[in-house]
Amino acid sequence: MATGTLPSVVSRYKVPIITLFLSVYIDIFDCQQFVITFKSPSDCSGDTFFDISSLSCVSCGSNQLRSTTGLSCICKTGYQTLITDKTSITCQQCPTDKPAVITDGFGCVRCPGSLSDEGKCQCPPGNILVERDTNGNLLDEARCEICNGNTPGLTVPNYSGDKCERCQDSFINSSCVCNPPNVLAGGLCIPSGSLSTNVNPSVNYAQLKFSVQSAWFVKNLYSSSAACLVFSNLTACQALGNMCVMNMHSFSSVSTDACGLFNTIFRSRAALSSTQDISYWRVNLPWLYYGDEPGLAGRVLQTDPVPIKFSFRGRNKNTDIRLLAAVYNVRGEFLRWEQVGAGNLQLCPGTTSRQSAAFSFGTAYQESCDLSVAHLLDAHPEPLFYDVFLDLGGGENRKLLPLPTLVYNQQYNGRLINEESMKNWYLSRRVFVVDTLSGREKSTSSLPKVIRVVSSVKIRFQLVPRTQDGQVFPPLMTVTYRDVPITDINTQTVTTTFAVEYEMDQNEARIKTDTAIGVMAGVALIYSLLKTVSWKRRIASPLIDAETLLKFLIFYAGDLANVFFAVTVGTGLYWLIFYKTLKAQQFVSVLLPLPAQEEQFVTYVGCAFALKAVQFLHKLFMQVSIDVFFIDWERPRCKANRTVQAAGEPKRDPSPVSIWRTYFVANEWNEIQTIRKISPTFQIMAVLFFLEVLGFSNLALRDPWPILQRSSQEYTPSYSIILRYGLSSTLWLCIGFLQVKRPPVILLSFLSLAL
Amino acid sequence: MATGTLPSVVSRYKVPIITLFLSVYIDIFDCQQFVITFKSPSDCSGDTFFDISSLSCVSCGSNQLRSTTGLSCICKTGYQTLITDKTSITCQQCPTDKPAVITDGFGCVRCPGSLSDEGKCQCPPGNILVERDTNGNLLDEARCEICNGNTPGLTVPNYSGDKCERCQDSFINSSCVCNPPNVLAGGLCIPSGSLSTNVNPSVNYAQLKFSVQSAWFVKNLYSSSAACLVFSNLTACQALGNMCVMNMHSFSSVSTDACGLFNTIFRSRAALSSTQDISYWRVNLPWLYYGDEPGLAGRVLQTDPVPIKFSFRGRNKNTDIRLLAAVYNVRGEFLRWEQVGAGNLQLCPGTTSRQSAAFSFGTAYQESCDLSVAHLLDAHPEPLFYDVFLDLGGGENRKLLPLPTLVYNQQYNGRLINEESMKNWYLSRRVFVVDTLSGREKSTSSLPKVIRVVSSVKIRFQLVPRTQDGQVFPPLMTVTYRDVPITDINTQTVTTTFAVEYEMDQNEARIKTDTAIGVMAGVALIYSLLKTVSWKRRIASPLIDAETLLKFLIFYAGDLANVFFAVTVGTGLYWLIFYKTLKAQQFVSVLLPLPAQEEQFVTYVGCAFALKAVQFLHKLFMQVSIDVFFIDWERPRCKANRTVQAAGEPKRDPSPVSIWRTYFVANEWNEIQTIRKISPTFQIMAVLFFLEVLGFSNLALRDPWPILQRSSQEYTPSYSIILRYGLSSTLWLCIGFLQVKRPPVILLSFLSLAL
Repeated sequence: MATGTLPSVVSRYKVPIITLFLSVYIDIFDCQQFVITFKSPSDCSGDTFFDISSLSCVSCGSNQLRSTTGLSCICKTGYQTLITDKTSITCQQCPTDKPAVITDGFGCVRCPGSLSDEGKCQCPPGNILVERDTNGNLLDEARCEICNGNTPGLTVPNYSGDKCERCQDSFINSSCVCNPPNVLAGGLCIPSGSLSTNVNPSVNYAQLKFSVQSAWFVKNLYSSSAACLVFSNLTACQALGNMCVMNMHSFSSVSTDACGLFNTIFRSRAALSSTQDISYWRVNLPWLYYGDEPGLAGRVLQTDPVPIKFSFRGRNKNTDIRLLAAVYNVRGEFLRWEQVGAGNLQLCPGTTSRQSAAFSFGTAYQESCDLSVAHLLDAHPEPLFYDVFLDLGGGENRKLLPLPTLVYNQQYNGRLINEESMKNWYLSRRVFVVDTLSGREKSTSSLPKVIRVVSSVKIRFQLVPRTQDGQVFPPLMTVTYRDVPITDINTQTVTTTFAVEYEMDQNEARIKTDTAIGVMAGVALIYSLLKTVSWKRRIASPLIDAETLLKFLIFYAGDLANVFFAVTVGTGLYWLIFYKTLKAQQFVSVLLPLPAQEEQFVTYVGCAFALKAVQFLHKLFMQVSIDVFFIDWERPRCKANRTVQAAGEPKRDPSPVSIWRTYFVANEWNEIQTIRKISPTFQIMAVLFFLEVLGFSNLALRDPWPILQRSSQEYTPSYSIILRYGLSSTLWLCIGFLQVKRPPVILLSFLSLAL
Repeated sequence: MATGTLPSVVSRYKVPIITLFLSVYIDIFDCQQFVITFKSPSDCSGDTFFDISSLSCVSCGSNQLRSTTGLSCICKTGYQTLITDKTSITCQQCPTDKPAVITDGFGCVRCPGSLSDEGKCQCPPGNILVERDTNGNLLDEARCEICNGNTPGLTVPNYSGDKCERCQDSFINSSCVCNPPNVLAGGLCIPSGSLSTNVNPSVNYAQLKFSVQSAWFVKNLYSSSAACLVFSNLTACQALGNMCVMNMHSFSSVSTDACGLFNTIFRSRAALSSTQDISYWRVNLPWLYYGDEPGLAGRVLQTDPVPIKFSFRGRNKNTDIRLLAAVYNVRGEFLRWEQVGAGNLQLCPGTTSRQSAAFSFGTAYQESCDLSVAHLLDAHPEPLFYDVFLDLGGGENRKLLPLPTLVYNQQYNGRLINEESMKNWYLSRRVFVVDTLSGREKSTSSLPKVIRVVSSVKIRFQLVPRTQDGQVFPPLMTVTYRDVPITDINTQTVTTTFAVEYEMDQNEARIKTDTAIGVMAGVALIYSLLKTVSWKRRIASPLIDAETLLKFLIFYAGDLANVFFAVTVGTGLYWLIFYKTLKAQQFVSVLLPLPAQEEQFVTYVGCAFALKAVQFLHKLFMQVSIDVFFIDWERPRCKANRTVQAAGEPKRDPSPVSIWRTYFVANEWNEIQTIRKISPTFQIMAVLFFLEVLGFSNLALRDPWPILQRSSQEYTPSYSIILRYGLSSTLWLCIGFLQVKRPPVILLSFLSLAL
């Protein structure tokens, strides 16, 4: 191959492109030694099995067919298995007088009755199949023995049908059978009259405006409710509670759906004492609700502070938020206590250090991502349910505070009450994350019609007003679910967010800001009046006309803009110093305003900008409309006349003045017009250097650590507008001031700081 | 509370700080209604159980104690369970004539022998315990029945000891017992003489320089080898192969460790045919190695192209790399076929879209992260083993190409042969990701002493030289493991990397570049000579002295720098156009140089910079040492003399010339000295605008898509130095050219492009 220059390389591409269109199919090279054909266990048909060592389908021996797993071979129907050598099996047909194969496949027997399809004996219901005697010897003819269901035996056949074992406790009273009017449900015999079988197994998907008759509910709703009510079966009560949670805790006039049944049982327990001294938590039942008295939410969330104090620095440094969750599966079984975090509520993937930043007090955390529906169906075949608590510590006597939860999708008689004001909120306790089970309509293993995924989890901490001790109110967890109809699992995605927020009542700060603006605006008014008066005196006009008014308004606009600017910079500096520095945050007493609370600040900055723009335009107009007259009083140079005059009068001829000096000075004066004390390029470069290179912009992040260098592996919260504004204005003013004044001492200290 | 101004707020903090030091302990507020005490199931002592509904410890009834799970209560030893009401159990002591409780706990019997510690009957080994007759009626006295181990029964007691079942196939020949000299291992009876029991169950951790007697190997090495050799048990053979893989595929002179035993069985199968027409893949055995002939790696990796063609655009667009892995667990069971990606080899967490970018052909992928050891121990209690294949497609007749693997940690008789040259490479097949099992010394559930984690997985695709069809050689997967000694699982982390690289033989391109530089350097030499000659003529010196030589060298330095610059910019443009644009990449024929191959380029750029610096310093020196004389030939203004001369000669007096014109012109000339056609600020701003705002810098990423806007959710590969250099030089030159020439037509088109 010639190594040509570029043009020949280009021309070389022409021919192969044509040949490309001709060779569309894949060549299998004959000398490709290592290519194999793909086979999976389901690809191997009836008389072959999937050989796991060669990853291919291999024929079974004679009279054999593949097992249910497909990974080995078993004997055909009517053939018994013999071990002839160590490595493989042989199948021998059963003799005609013993045509059935015994259950383990290693012998033949005569059957008392008929043979099943698999060529084994079968017995009537309630009987067990006996093929060997008690010592293990094979019988010639198998027997069907009936299990004695009456006292004192009380036995029924076991699952494999080969032994009699004691029947379930609920069947004891009726000789191990469950006959009407008793109801057989979920493997239990429910006495008649305890609970009506008319239950509503539908799950309502309000966002999609339809309901699904869930297979799980059809199978388990009645049995769980009955077992909970009649037998006080703890697991069944949890399962019933879980079904109510899957239906979004929603009450309606229908009292036979999951939450209606739960509520029925809840009210029936009213006479008994409540658990753990909490009146909403009844014996044997899960704690699902906080009660529906109006205003209860406010009392729960804003009355008693949490008995731990958060502190950013010092001996009592305490910035870890430990949330524990009691985890239940959908059947109601208690699994374990689990730390809330990456494994449960934080669905977005990420490294441990990033995800644990969410539980560092003071760091405003938010993480969003898109999850693929196919992956969710894979990873969450059944939902898990979490009761979340805040760990208060305490060593041996460790205490927990239950976390009130607000489910936005919750309905109360058809109203989304949690989207209304706090007075109407109906707090609850239990949450799940991904529910792919309740949307399955035909059976619990079919593809679901709808899945429900948590689209937003927000944990909000509110600082007690005017606290000096870093006290917070009980945090609130707000959960929003999204109903996703299944159309194409490989392309659908769901967006989910996990956020932790910190809030403080900003009314005091707002009042202080407004007062400052009011006072300084009054002072600015007086100052503008004075300026207008002096301007009038300079133009020597006694009339107060429209022009005077306009001048006054423009002066006032400029001064008011200065007022707004001063107040906003002061506010930014206040937050910067008091939120981030050492002294003030020994105990948490100040929290940044939330983005929603920053709107007023943004308005002030906007006003300052607009008013200053007005003043600036006016000044520009004034400058543009100025006429400048340049007068140069140059003296002509007197030159002595060399010629001696004959006549008596000495005459001096003045040399004319050349215009060049005037031109020179006018040119230089013109050039001076645009000289500035502050070099824009240096200003911008210096400010950017401080902000981006030295990392001062990281002082404006929403967490309480004044760290300049942040690694990319860690979590960095979002920026706060107020802090950014305060920081950049302060830097800009300082650097501008240094250029204007240029004090040598301060310059030296500036350099030392930079180094 | 007074809303004070800032100074009072500061002073307000003084007193509380003092009180803080006094209040060090946590207050429990009495009115905090909702605090509960933390209890977990292990906290509840002997006669209490963990109530899952109230999450607290509740006393069991009389004569009861907690069950093994701790979530319910059972009767004490010697007490039978009675069902008296629906919700709870009662315990009644067994009468003295029937002191033992039956196995299910619901009755009492007399024992034929002694009672166990749990108060139940026990029987000698080989006997089963019969407490009920065949119909389920409870006997008064339990019986111990012996299971007939001889033919034709061949039974032993089952696991629960209540029924006789057929014994395992390997015991058939010895009446269901395994007596010496036969060896009982792993539940099988190994005939004597088949395999020596002297096996070496140690796992070698070469990086830490010690070996561990692994509990898993102690339990399973002999039994797996024997079952594989004697019974051709497929699962046992896979388990043995897995143990060899856990020992890093390493052969040594010791032939009784895992790989030694595997090799023994491998050689004993030589007579039988190999599987799938691959001579290294023997019947019943997993395919672990490619063979140890020298140079085999070169033949496998660089002879036959893979029979699929990758194309970036057009009808035959094919950019997906599909890797399939056959997954085995550590016991040797085949689990499933699995797509390689997020669930197995890509250990770093990330969203689906980012992680699937790794398998888009042409995108240079690299992802690193730190994994916490505690999380690894949790998520990977046992390792999984992967045989990786490349999916060649083919619809019904789907083909797979095995992926050769290079394990850096592999030793051959003590040498790390895979770190040597390709001639000595010993390719293998099977990999695992996290092994926390082999380092467990005392038992398989104790904490491991060492764990082995994959620290780097690199899949490399090499383009066939001079291909027009986008053909690649079989890809190579290079795996490096890291041995992590367990000291503190909560703080230890392991760094892991997953990378996919694309390589092309860069010799041709290098030759072309070198040729271009050689030719143009020759031309530059001649040009510099000409310049030196003309300079000599201007200074009118006929001597060839040191100064001439110096001048020549400096001229040549400048011209050579131009040559290097032109060649490097040309190279950068070449890669930019031919890698990223439409026409040339219909089929993949050009791949970027790897970072390692870019060194030569960086050297050239460095040379250009250095030589240009020399020329620049010389020019600066010349300019600084220039003396400029300014001569202004101003004519004096002739002024007619007003006075009329008496005498005859008319005398004209010349007016003196003022110096102002000279000053003026000199001043302006001085100012012109620093005027440039190219404004630096505009140049920098325009180039940055194109690169960062419009996103042209994304053309320099290592993937074949010329997309300017990249979302932050997607994966962005690293930058290529050559492309960055080519892109920025081109932009800089274009914008500089526009400023110098300022052609109006081009300007209009430039604006339209920007918009």
